[in-house]
Formats: sequence, C-alpha cells, structure tokens
Amino acid sequence: MEIKEIGKRELTKRLAKIFEQRDEAIYGQRCAAKKSGEGYLLSSTYTMAEGVHFDLTYTPLKHLGYKAVVGALTNIAAMNGKGETLTISVALSSRFSVEATEDLYLGFDAACRDYGVSYMGGELTASLTGLTITITAQGYVSEQKITLSSGAKANDIICVTGDLGAAYLGLKLLEREKRVLKGNNVSKPKLEGYEYLLQRQLKPVLQDDFIESLESASLQPSAMTAITESLASDLKSICQSSGVGAMIYLDRLPIAQQTFDLCDTMNIDPVIAAINGGDDFAMLFTISPSEYERVAKIEGVDIIGHTIEGSQMILSTPDGGAIDITSPNDI
Amino acid sequence: MEIKEIGKRELTKRLAKIFEQRDEAIYGQRCAAKKSGEGYLLSSTYTMAEGVHFDLTYTPLKHLGYKAVVGALTNIAAMNGKGETLTISVALSSRFSVEATEDLYLGFDAACRDYGVSYMGGELTASLTGLTITITAQGYVSEQKITLSSGAKANDIICVTGDLGAAYLGLKLLEREKRVLKGNNVSKPKLEGYEYLLQRQLKPVLQDDFIESLESASLQPSAMTAITESLASDLKSICQSSGVGAMIYLDRLPIAQQTFDLCDTMNIDPVIAAINGGDDFAMLFTISPSEYERVAKIEGVDIIGHTIEGSQMILSTPDGGAIDITSPNDI
Repeated sequence: MEIKEIGKRELTKRLAKIFEQRDEAIYGQRCAAKKSGEGYLLSSTYTMAEGVHFDLTYTPLKHLGYKAVVGALTNIAAMNGKGETLTISVALSSRFSVEATEDLYLGFDAACRDYGVSYMGGELTASLTGLTITITAQGYVSEQKITLSSGAKANDIICVTGDLGAAYLGLKLLEREKRVLKGNNVSKPKLEGYEYLLQRQLKPVLQDDFIESLESASLQPSAMTAITESLASDLKSICQSSGVGAMIYLDRLPIAQQTFDLCDTMNIDPVIAAINGGDDFAMLFTISPSEYERVAKIEGVDIIGHTIEGSQMILSTPDGGAIDITSPNDI
Repeated sequence: MEIKEIGKRELTKRLAKIFEQRDEAIYGQRCAAKKSGEGYLLSSTYTMAEGVHFDLTYTPLKHLGYKAVVGALTNIAAMNGKGETLTISVALSSRFSVEATEDLYLGFDAACRDYGVSYMGGELTASLTGLTITITAQGYVSEQKITLSSGAKANDIICVTGDLGAAYLGLKLLEREKRVLKGNNVSKPKLEGYEYLLQRQLKPVLQDDFIESLESASLQPSAMTAITESLASDLKSICQSSGVGAMIYLDRLPIAQQTFDLCDTMNIDPVIAAINGGDDFAMLFTISPSEYERVAKIEGVDIIGHTIEGSQMILSTPDGGAIDITSPNDI
C-alpha cells in the first residue's frame, strides 16, 4: 500500500501502535510523554530537510539553525512543558564549507541561549543530497499541567497566540524575490516595509512566555497543539483526537497589518493565508468556556471560536455564511 | 574552507566549542553527558543514511531498524551507561510502502524490547532521496562509573569485547552476492557457512552484558569507546583524546574462524579486516595494568595490547616487526 493512500497522520498512528502494546508512554502528534517521578518526561523530534522544508537560496544558515531549535521546543511547549536539553543531528553534503557549518551551529547556540536549553551533542554525518537537520528536544511537565490534543470537549472556547499567516507571507515574499533576482541580478530585493513578515518566517519566537502566563494564571487548557503546519491542519488534529468539531469566526482571526498589505499586493486571500499558511509556531488551544474572562486577559491571546458537537470544522463569515474548513492532505 | 581539509573529527570539535563556552556538559565523540542528580544524563544521536551507511538491495528493513537502535545504544554503553529512552526520526521518499515502513518500525521495536528501552516517539517526514534514520538515545550513568575516551594513561592495557572484522566480512559477502545476482537472476546466494558473518553485519548485538560484567566486578576502565568505525579509527580517538600511543599485538587480535575462511576465499587480509573493518559494535577500552588478572577473567574480553608514551599506534607482528596503524581519513 502506498503511504499517500492512508496519509502521514494515519501511518504515524499505526507505527505508534507497534510500541503501544508494551510501553506506558503517551504518543502525541509531535511529542511523546513518559511517566517520570511526579510528572512526565517529554520528548519531541523535529526534522527539516533541504528542498522539503527550506530553500537555502534565501534562508541564512544561522536563521535556519535558530528556527529548527524553536520548532523542536515549540512541540514541548505545546504539551504545556518546558524544554531542558536537546541533541542536534546534521547530515550535510560536501558542498557546505566549515564556515557555513559553523554559521548553522551559531544559530543553534543562539536559540539555546535565548531559551535556556542545554545542547547535548549530536552527530554530523555525510549526506549525498543537501542538508537535513534533526533536533530532539527533551523537557518536563508536571502531571497536573500536561496537555494533550485529545482533551477538548464540545463548547470549549478555541484560542490562538499571536497572529496568523505572517510566516506564510514572509515565505511568499522571499520566493518572489528569488524569482525576481533570477531574472535580473542587479535588482535590489523589495523587502522594505515587510520586516515583520520576514522575521516571522526567518526567526520565529518560542511561545514560552505564554506557557508561563498560563501557569501564573493557573489556567489549564483542555487541549493544545502548536500551529506548525497550518491552523486548518492543526485544528483538525485537535478535533479528530478529541472527537469534536469546530466553529471559527472569520472576523476573529488575528491577522497583522503587514500580512493584509502584502496579500493585497500579491493577490492572496488573507483568510486563506491565516487558515492554510504554515510556520506560525503559535499555540492553538481549547479551554472551558467558564475561563473566558480570564483567558481574554492574557496578552497576545485571541479567542477565535469554539468547539461543537460532531466533526465538522466550519468558518463562520460576518454575513452569516458558513464555509467548511479543509486542510490539504499531508505527505 | 572545505570540510575535507580539516576532517569531520576536527569540525565536530570546533562546533562543540560553540556551546562549551556556556554549558557544563561533556561532549564525547559520540555521546554527551550532563550532570543530573548523582550522575550524568547521557545522550547520543545515531544517523544512518541510505547510500552512505546501508544498501537496501541486501538489507532487510527490519534488520536495519534493529541495527540502528543497537548503534545508538552502543554509544551510551561506551560511556559505561545504560540506555533508557529513545526517539526515532525517519525521513523517507514516496517509494516506500506502508508495509515496508512498518517492517522498519518492527525492527526498532524488537531492539527496544531486547534491551529494555522505551520508545519516546519521533517524526516521520518526506524525503526527496531515500531513507534516513536518526535515533537519539538517552541514558544514565553514575558519577563513579562514567567513562570517557580521554582517561587512558601510558601502560594501560587495551582490551576489546568480541571478535573483530566479522561484520565487515558480512558486508563483503552481501556485496559479492549483489554483484552475482545482478548478472544472473536465477543464481542462489552462496551464503551458507557464513551465517555468523551475516548476523554480525545484519543483526549486531548490544554489549550491555559486558557493561554489567564490569559493574559486578567493580572494574572501572580508564577510557572506553565503541568500535563502530574501525579498531584503527576508534583506537586513534582514545589515543588522541588521552594523549597516548598504542602497541597492538597482531597475534592477540580476536578473529573468528568464518572471518578467516571468507578472507581466504575472497583474498582479503584478515588483519586488515580486523583493524580497518567497521560495524563491529564492540567495546574498546583501556584499564590499569593492575587489573590484568581480573579483566582477563571476563568472558568475551580480549587483551590486545597496551598504551605507550607518545602518539604512535603500532602493530607488533609475531616476528618482531612493527607496522604503523593508520586509519583512512574521515568524511
């Protein structure tokens, strides 16, 4: 059977079942948890492959290293945990120089410093084809705080941190400049005015402040995941794991001004960018409606809708319309 | 500067220095250690890439999965530690079927069961080019037991576990059959009589019994590493880290009968196979000469020589000759 017939998500579930017969671990979508003392040891692996996840013609290696670390730690944060250590494995072809490799590692180190995480070594291997980065982050979460994607109940409110679609527009901007530069080498990249979009794409921020805010407010989400693929895809993950549907209000989607501006210039629908764009590294969570007031007070959190009975994911428009939210097939 | 100008080992050292300025971790050649409670948390990453580390025309996927886990755990054992958890990241191209992927994971699971290690999830990603497996193993070792490659002193005895060169000959055998089968599809592979060599190549054994033997005998090696590249290359690693040289006695090298037999048939020098062949997954360690009697009693351990002042690595032949031991450049 070809993998595309069942998709990556279903395949990942089947593979986890091989181990589940024996281990008491919890296998989340992107992070596993194993009982350890008074809480859980968390572990998440994050892979970025050249040509699949990044394009080195417009991604500086130092930024790439930084982003890979943020990606790995984001999956630990999405379990409501704190990253502590990470190992980094890099496979690279002989076209990379010593200096380029050092740039990449300076990016890893910068992110480790920013987020107080210890580097625990890793491996450097030869690759026949470009660059692949694999980061395994380990962390910890207490038994009270651990948050899975499967705990949402109908009528929970749905929240996101930060704005949506900006990283996707940053990518579109870089891709446009790549095409322009190919045709005319002397043209200067037109990136002015879109610094925020570029930063969101090239140097994402770990949402660990938000995890701390939850803790200090003693707020416990019913379900949580990180938006790394897209709002549609990651919301689907919560809905499927929890056995609920979702109603999202179009006019509640947080979209930055620069995202609107560039969408206008490039003829992109900003709502599509917000729902189907990737790399946002935002947190998507559900929480009991009784916490509405307290959640609304947390800086940077937007309430975008609520869960519903059933399995449908609906986008409600201001004129009273309802559109099905769909996510492209994975792998 | 091109990586080949300084080599992988030197590059790895430079990259570790980026982090060393800050962290208190110990970065071994293939395993890192971080102080944790009364001991050290160990972490090792092991990568196998198609075309570089394995050839799927003669490597069953289940065996490949098993071997990758043993490889990762071997690096934890080489620090005198015990593996506890591991994460597995797999990048694969669309030519792999669901069933093939499951076979690979059944191999991971079989090794996890055999060695009492918990699977902590991982990631499955698309790859444009074949299969890459990255395993990160985590383990633990007490402060008294931790063993680095840098602790050897001159006149320590040098020991290995198991015999050498068998895995390399197993590989030669498989490569020969691949060539034969390419020319004639009906020919039956001539593998009879060499089962041991095939097993050593395809289903290596973790030397955890040996680590337990060391503990029950209260023996503490001065330096240790695993022979994954080759005796020459891994001995060089101990010698360079410890600032010593080595004298190895040719007639003390443990070589299995099947290795001799196939070497004879294929015109391969068995000593070259033992010294420069890879994949042995044996332990190479040094220990104080005062422990000679006690070490000699441990089953499966051979004393093959001793460390010397200086940095030379010498192979002493029975007729009194002395040959420099060299290892091919890495990357």
